[in-house]
Amino acid sequence: MYYLYFQILKASLSTTFEFTQNMMFKEKVVATYQQIQDEICTALEVSDGFGTFEQEIWQREGGGGGRTRIMQNGNVIEKGGVNFSSVHGTLPENIKKAFKVDSENFFATGVSIVMHPSNPFVPIIHLNIRYFELDDNTRWFGGGIDLTPHYVIDTDARFFHHYIKDVCDEFNPEFYSSFKKNADDYFYIKHRAETRGVGGIFYDRLQPKTANLDYESILDFSAAVGRSFIPIYTELIDRNRDSAFTEAEKEWQYLRRSRYAEFNLVYDSGTKFGLETNGRIESILMSLPPTAKWAYNFKPIPDSPEALTTDRLRKGINWV
Amino acid sequence: MYYLYFQILKASLSTTFEFTQNMMFKEKVVATYQQIQDEICTALEVSDGFGTFEQEIWQREGGGGGRTRIMQNGNVIEKGGVNFSSVHGTLPENIKKAFKVDSENFFATGVSIVMHPSNPFVPIIHLNIRYFELDDNTRWFGGGIDLTPHYVIDTDARFFHHYIKDVCDEFNPEFYSSFKKNADDYFYIKHRAETRGVGGIFYDRLQPKTANLDYESILDFSAAVGRSFIPIYTELIDRNRDSAFTEAEKEWQYLRRSRYAEFNLVYDSGTKFGLETNGRIESILMSLPPTAKWAYNFKPIPDSPEALTTDRLRKGINWV
Repeated sequence: MYYLYFQILKASLSTTFEFTQNMMFKEKVVATYQQIQDEICTALEVSDGFGTFEQEIWQREGGGGGRTRIMQNGNVIEKGGVNFSSVHGTLPENIKKAFKVDSENFFATGVSIVMHPSNPFVPIIHLNIRYFELDDNTRWFGGGIDLTPHYVIDTDARFFHHYIKDVCDEFNPEFYSSFKKNADDYFYIKHRAETRGVGGIFYDRLQPKTANLDYESILDFSAAVGRSFIPIYTELIDRNRDSAFTEAEKEWQYLRRSRYAEFNLVYDSGTKFGLETNGRIESILMSLPPTAKWAYNFKPIPDSPEALTTDRLRKGINWV
Repeated sequence: MYYLYFQILKASLSTTFEFTQNMMFKEKVVATYQQIQDEICTALEVSDGFGTFEQEIWQREGGGGGRTRIMQNGNVIEKGGVNFSSVHGTLPENIKKAFKVDSENFFATGVSIVMHPSNPFVPIIHLNIRYFELDDNTRWFGGGIDLTPHYVIDTDARFFHHYIKDVCDEFNPEFYSSFKKNADDYFYIKHRAETRGVGGIFYDRLQPKTANLDYESILDFSAAVGRSFIPIYTELIDRNRDSAFTEAEKEWQYLRRSRYAEFNLVYDSGTKFGLETNGRIESILMSLPPTAKWAYNFKPIPDSPEALTTDRLRKGINWV
């Protein structure tokens, strides 16, 4: 019945035809993202070896909903979330102004991941892939993946950047250098004059004219970024999960986590968008660390591993 | 020499006379606030019985500076700051717009206090008294005092509100009810739909036409608010410092502290102003808790003391 309805519409008008094409594209994005969420959760449970994801299905009052999946107190993952959402509704006035558009409605779907590991030598990781649509002519992909080590291990940072450069290069040779610069600029804690971590890639408003790819290929790129998560993070987990650490190193991890909380609450657009559009708070704030500490005016000992990390938290480092 | 210069200026023109009057008033506010900082630090050290304040004197690049005083790991106070600052300089463009003024320069002085006690039954307390001046005609006082118990103890909340109502009533019978409502509205965590604590008083842009008092009397009120801190907080410390607590109650304290961090980083105007005007970060963010935890979707057991506290975190409760 549903199918027939589309056939009839398709046969009628070309504008309507494009509309249904979009409808189907949207559904394809949703299906791809849900699939990626499933793959990542399954693989992370295997990698962790103990923790399991608990799922909550939620509905958004204004339209749509999501599947929030959280792991707490695993072997490796102290707290982490792999969230899928697909929401639609009326565009809030302030967002309309921010985007400089006239559209009354929006559709947005995405997968968001943040992992806070318990071992200070395993890095925090963040991934986001998303698709946003205002109307047929105003729609784009955004997202990225970035790494926040409590201790910067240069070989790990290089492995990470090489991996994502390879993913980017398959689609457009200019993506990596452009999106790497975006990440340096975006994941910057201005009031601390330091980057959140060693960066990664960050892109927004990716559409045919900016990507030099059609929408199908941009979706493929988005999916490839999503599917880079498991090979990257399981490798970084396996390299560092059994590293011994002292109490002082755990304390340093808590301090680094408080910087992560500062970034997300003060600067992160996704968090701000969520708080302002009345999103599901517990899903949005799953990114915040399980335990964080703010010590007054803590200064690492010169030439210590902590000082070395602080030195690495700046823009423009070439990791490849 | 300096004194003589003022005498001559006073004798010359009435506009200049007013200017020097203002200069002297500004100095009087600064001296009063520094005195209050001293009194509070001395009394808090006595009350704590172990912790001492460490002071850092800092200079602001654009003009002025401050005395940051921090206590960490005391008997009662796990982390707390009693900060004085007096800054001046060029008004940033965004602040000019926010205040809707044409003045190029600003002067601001104040005392800011946040105390994070280690015992979950001793409340977090916050006080701020400040004076802001753009020009002779555009100057005002602001501030307030408010309480954030990890566990709301009704008798303590009533004691607190009665005390500050008495302070207010000495100056203007309308202050308490008006400023209490301000505090309910201001200390509100919108995305959690809960107040930060049990409120208190909050006032801003207090000047002769809004306060029905002259500037000297408003300064007296500001000083009286500042001087209410010690009798209020030492009483609340003495009532609860020896209360036994379980590990679960300590965990709840960590969760409540993370809400405190959310409020300060997302909504607090003082924090925002500080971050945007390139203030001294460690002094501004001393308000953040020593340790905080974000657990996913924590729900208190119905009718538990934690649920009772959550129930009290709403606007409009009459505590007097």
